[in-house]
Amino acid sequence: MKAIVRVRLKRDVLDPQGDAVKRALDHLGFEGVKGVRVGKLIELELDPALATAPDLEQRLRVMADEMLANTVVEDYEVELVS
Amino acid sequence: MKAIVRVRLKRDVLDPQGDAVKRALDHLGFEGVKGVRVGKLIELELDPALATAPDLEQRLRVMADEMLANTVVEDYEVELVS
Repeated sequence: MKAIVRVRLKRDVLDPQGDAVKRALDHLGFEGVKGVRVGKLIELELDPALATAPDLEQRLRVMADEMLANTVVEDYEVELVS
Repeated sequence: MKAIVRVRLKRDVLDPQGDAVKRALDHLGFEGVKGVRVGKLIELELDPALATAPDLEQRLRVMADEMLANTVVEDYEVELVS
């Protein structure tokens, strides 16, 4: 089983990386892109013991809170993928 | 309109960042995570002119090929979000 954690900068936080990508797209002549935000796509391969734990989602949230996301400036979503 | 480009390392490419995250999770006592892969979640805000272009998906693929992904070691998926 796999879990996907999507980590994004909070809406009101500046995204220098996204801005750099946008400038590069403009520079390469790609028109029509008003803004770019860059986040993390973290895929966790889970072993069966964890995958079947009743509190799996909760444990994933604790991992995200403590390690995968900086919750001061980032939000995250957890998705389970069988 | 928004487009999401998910960029992942190709399956057979080593992921030092993912390995570092896994070691940290182990170190913090999170059991049951067999592997971690870290990718990019790129969100593009599109202006109406581009959003309604008949070749929008093709133009996004060219952006990904030329700029958003390193196609030597990365794969990508493009998704349109209204």
